[in-house]
Amino acid sequence: MNVVSLTGAEPGYAFGGRDAALTVAPGTVVELTTEDCFGGAVRTVDDLPSRVCTFPYLNPVTGPIAVEGAEPGDAVAVHFVAIRPARDWAVSTTFPHFGALTTTHTTAMLHPALEERVWLYDVDAERGICRFKARMSDLELELPLDPMHGTVGVAPAANEVIMSITPGAHGGNMDTPEMRAGTTAYFPVNVPGALISLGDGHCRQGEGEVCGTAVEAAMNTVVIVDLIKGAAPPWPRLEDDAHLMSTGSARPLEDAFRISQHDLVTWTSSLLGLEELDAYQLVSQAGLAPAGNVVDTNYTMLAKLPKTALPGASAYDGVHRHLRETAAAYLAER
Amino acid sequence: MNVVSLTGAEPGYAFGGRDAALTVAPGTVVELTTEDCFGGAVRTVDDLPSRVCTFPYLNPVTGPIAVEGAEPGDAVAVHFVAIRPARDWAVSTTFPHFGALTTTHTTAMLHPALEERVWLYDVDAERGICRFKARMSDLELELPLDPMHGTVGVAPAANEVIMSITPGAHGGNMDTPEMRAGTTAYFPVNVPGALISLGDGHCRQGEGEVCGTAVEAAMNTVVIVDLIKGAAPPWPRLEDDAHLMSTGSARPLEDAFRISQHDLVTWTSSLLGLEELDAYQLVSQAGLAPAGNVVDTNYTMLAKLPKTALPGASAYDGVHRHLRETAAAYLAER
Amino acid sequence: MNVVSLTGAEPGYAFGGRDAALTVAPGTVVELTTEDCFGGAVRTVDDLPSRVCTFPYLNPVTGPIAVEGAEPGDAVAVHFVAIRPARDWAVSTTFPHFGALTTTHTTAMLHPALEERVWLYDVDAERGICRFKARMSDLELELPLDPMHGTVGVAPAANEVIMSITPGAHGGNMDTPEMRAGTTAYFPVNVPGALISLGDGHCRQGEGEVCGTAVEAAMNTVVIVDLIKGAAPPWPRLEDDAHLMSTGSARPLEDAFRISQHDLVTWTSSLLGLEELDAYQLVSQAGLAPAGNVVDTNYTMLAKLPKTALPGASAYDGVHRHLRETAAAYLAER
Amino acid sequence: MNVVSLTGAEPGYAFGGRDAALTVAPGTVVELTTEDCFGGAVRTVDDLPSRVCTFPYLNPVTGPIAVEGAEPGDAVAVHFVAIRPARDWAVSTTFPHFGALTTTHTTAMLHPALEERVWLYDVDAERGICRFKARMSDLELELPLDPMHGTVGVAPAANEVIMSITPGAHGGNMDTPEMRAGTTAYFPVNVPGALISLGDGHCRQGEGEVCGTAVEAAMNTVVIVDLIKGAAPPWPRLEDDAHLMSTGSARPLEDAFRISQHDLVTWTSSLLGLEELDAYQLVSQAGLAPAGNVVDTNYTMLAKLPKTALPGASAYDGVHRHLRETAAAYLAER
Repeated sequence: MNVVSLTGAEPGYAFGGRDAALTVAPGTVVELTTEDCFGGAVRTVDDLPSRVCTFPYLNPVTGPIAVEGAEPGDAVAVHFVAIRPARDWAVSTTFPHFGALTTTHTTAMLHPALEERVWLYDVDAERGICRFKARMSDLELELPLDPMHGTVGVAPAANEVIMSITPGAHGGNMDTPEMRAGTTAYFPVNVPGALISLGDGHCRQGEGEVCGTAVEAAMNTVVIVDLIKGAAPPWPRLEDDAHLMSTGSARPLEDAFRISQHDLVTWTSSLLGLEELDAYQLVSQAGLAPAGNVVDTNYTMLAKLPKTALPGASAYDGVHRHLRETAAAYLAER
Repeated sequence: MNVVSLTGAEPGYAFGGRDAALTVAPGTVVELTTEDCFGGAVRTVDDLPSRVCTFPYLNPVTGPIAVEGAEPGDAVAVHFVAIRPARDWAVSTTFPHFGALTTTHTTAMLHPALEERVWLYDVDAERGICRFKARMSDLELELPLDPMHGTVGVAPAANEVIMSITPGAHGGNMDTPEMRAGTTAYFPVNVPGALISLGDGHCRQGEGEVCGTAVEAAMNTVVIVDLIKGAAPPWPRLEDDAHLMSTGSARPLEDAFRISQHDLVTWTSSLLGLEELDAYQLVSQAGLAPAGNVVDTNYTMLAKLPKTALPGASAYDGVHRHLRETAAAYLAER
Repeated sequence: MNVVSLTGAEPGYAFGGRDAALTVAPGTVVELTTEDCFGGAVRTVDDLPSRVCTFPYLNPVTGPIAVEGAEPGDAVAVHFVAIRPARDWAVSTTFPHFGALTTTHTTAMLHPALEERVWLYDVDAERGICRFKARMSDLELELPLDPMHGTVGVAPAANEVIMSITPGAHGGNMDTPEMRAGTTAYFPVNVPGALISLGDGHCRQGEGEVCGTAVEAAMNTVVIVDLIKGAAPPWPRLEDDAHLMSTGSARPLEDAFRISQHDLVTWTSSLLGLEELDAYQLVSQAGLAPAGNVVDTNYTMLAKLPKTALPGASAYDGVHRHLRETAAAYLAER
Repeated sequence: MNVVSLTGAEPGYAFGGRDAALTVAPGTVVELTTEDCFGGAVRTVDDLPSRVCTFPYLNPVTGPIAVEGAEPGDAVAVHFVAIRPARDWAVSTTFPHFGALTTTHTTAMLHPALEERVWLYDVDAERGICRFKARMSDLELELPLDPMHGTVGVAPAANEVIMSITPGAHGGNMDTPEMRAGTTAYFPVNVPGALISLGDGHCRQGEGEVCGTAVEAAMNTVVIVDLIKGAAPPWPRLEDDAHLMSTGSARPLEDAFRISQHDLVTWTSSLLGLEELDAYQLVSQAGLAPAGNVVDTNYTMLAKLPKTALPGASAYDGVHRHLRETAAAYLAER
């Protein structure tokens, strides 16, 4: 097992436009750290993000990690082995003109911005909880930890350089709770090496990330990166032990839905040798469709199909199962 | 326990514009039957709906049921006691210019319509499965039964008469799999008696109802209808043993999302005595956001909050728990 | 020339659900009056609509006018001969949760409503102007009169009853400034007699009707109604001396755009005997696409083609030209 | 008068990520050439763009032009002095998965792509016309020349590099017919020098650019670039002799509308010293709202206000009038 560490590199704030910070062979385990989406600058309820953070230095990502042999047309797999909060606190906020229930710079209205407010959460990794504390009353509430990364992706096509807060066909800030330990994410390779970056750890988030931020935390994360030649998916896909998932990131939200469902139908058709309308029918009756985020510059929807509806199918020749085994071996050694 | 039966009445095809077929006291158990969305006319793979059905006589609903004492400003509760497929078969289809992945009359494009095709499902209630059979290959697949009603609602406000295929603030064709036995639905009362109708039974459906129809079936259904004075919700709400849920039905899909999340935030704020931004924060971290349908004349999104995030809260003074007990008593007697 | 008068009838507040107030032969000139969208209740800057108006008694329409011989599948034409403000004042307002730059009940947000405010306009029909008077400063400004009707339509299909504030395939509250004297509007007939209603006079409006209301006024209006057998358009169409126009009313706004462009392409194809992609090309280079409204329950877009791009074409066998001649004769007699 | 020439430079395919090809003082007249959006590769009806063009080398832009002294926070003005078709032919096409009335990669559907087809236009600059020739019939039709640039903009904020086919706050591919000779465009400066690029000349286009391309042509173009210190608009603005115009580029289309209207209201408020709701009212009654494009990666709407509704106002201290005078002097010399 090849294990390398990526720490201390300067963070990036975009996908594309940067050289690799690390180059690894397919199958390598990478241990890394990520800062929270505020770069660690919001530490008390008085640290309003609009004051302590400087645009565009938001949502730092760790990387890029180049994968040896990755070429346009290939897929890279990023398997999440472990995602552990690095501190005993985390933070969430509203932010002016950002969120699903507020005027924004694009859903432009004549209202003044909603109040900017910070919530600090206590994080108890051992007990597996984070503690919500209301700001205007005494209510406190334990919520289960479900650590994940909001932002994972590769360098975009067409030489674009895209802010890390934008999700798209290259991945990026999809903000789905499915990006947790045990999940494998597949991305299309657009440039040699693929150039994977990730960040924006969340102790947990609701679907939709309604207020604009999750329970934001620095993370100690372990991933395995792998290469699948000639298998570029059109949009990022996810796999866990029980589901295949397609993602779509666009506006309006129904286009994010359409992209994800179209990809899941096509994928199902290919995996089961089903004619396309037959696959459309199967996905329509067996699929799930949770929101990822409805706040970012593009919105993200997921289309999920239980593997029980995919008898005998094995995506990408069983890469996920293989990565799960490698991850188990890695964790057993530590 | 007051138990009445509603059978043999002429079906309706709209919410509003009809007199009550049955009037009951709050708390009454109503046993009823519903036809499938094709009025039972699609029985073989050669029965193309566009040929055997006649617009606007689609999606028949049973009712209306008037609730004694219900006045504008009140809420009516519809608790689903049992939803049982009435036949050993069910049906799903594509339909020209209808569905999420096709040009429609509003997402108007220059493509010819997708092929119209019928799938027949075998239904085995005892084993709890329905069997998908591909049309263009030999693949067959058992999917779990999860019976539900796509269409439930009340007479609309402003004296409108709205086709039964449209979801909105009055309920209607929300097409969410959450409308299953064990769920209580709450609707605002717009006219005296509320005038509840329901139909469009599904043996199961995926979230989004992507191809436009679910596993459509006639149903033998039992509901309890109840009245909560002065408690009209702005949009339909659902409750099961584990979650509170708000619905929003609109286009674009992000507006359906906003409506449902806005209502869940407001409802949570009220139930927990939380200031509104504090409730926004809590829902953002603990909520779920699955699609209902993304095919009907309005799209439907759900906002779900686990009751574990609502310590000590009891919606509508515990009506749901009370209805569950009545339902259990009813089922025990049969 | 057959000239009849329609005055003193009870106004309606919906399309559908009412019997004819007047039945006329095709080609009849109808003189009528319409109240403003507030039913005349807003007369000073202190008459806030949310206080002086009662939902759903908003946007009264005059009618319905039945056209003898009109059957489903036909088109009715409504030609505007004259639209004259009935008073020397008019009014515009903001309204809570209504307008393009505010949170609404569907674009639901956590902001409080924008301020409700009334603007009174002086109307000088002789000079052809209305006078805007700022409320928070001394600025006054003359704007040209361009009288039009926001709401014109027929009884909907499928026996629906739809509030007069909603635009759709039946017409309704399209709120386009093109509905002025000299324009002919074509509607599909859904019920025997068609049942035409109209109201919501505007001294003028900007495209989009951004704040939610125009310069609202009671009107003395003259129309000619006519019948075109077997020629039902899928959506309302307009014609003036220089343009053919298709309308689309839907959400999101791109669907309103798609509907209107799709209809204009199809119509052009039919009028010029052009293959469909050739018509798509021609409309793409020669067409105009102004917003009607972006505030109502559906948004409205127009697709306009100059007649100079339609050499030799004559829509509906020249009905518009004929109605213009009748209108000229009528006006010459008065 | 300072006149310089920019010819023979390598075209770019993005905004951002490139060094200046030319640096000029504010007020300089720049003579330049632009290739058509296909890089000149589509020359016959058999040159299907998907075969003769190579992604991402589409929509070439000329530049960047750096403006001396331009710093973030400033505005640069680009005044169009002359836009002249460089050849006696132009071209338009459909393109697979691109256009308003077809499935696309984001409005993803199960339909096969529409037919890819090329239309060649004859261009007669002297007579001021271009000639449409139907492909499937004999119809030919002269349309007036109205030359314009679809793509004009500056380097984006946040160090992004954005494909030239995307419109946004930096300008880019807005595809509005208003970008013609006689118009001044104002852009916010995001990087030192602003780095202006332009391309995508159209002999004419309809509003919405429905089929995805206009009457595409190489152009000989003359612009004057200028600098307005400290006056960065939030989104691109346009001015001609008769109108002020704000633009918004986003999805869904109503957000493009909201952005443009919000900016026009704010701008009007500032120019007339009007309180904001008073400006909202004035724009609502006097404004125009045509579509730019409804096909690109973002859609573009314009909000236009006639200067007759802006008595005494002078945007940017009369820069437009001054540039018109310089342009007239330049043209008089040639």
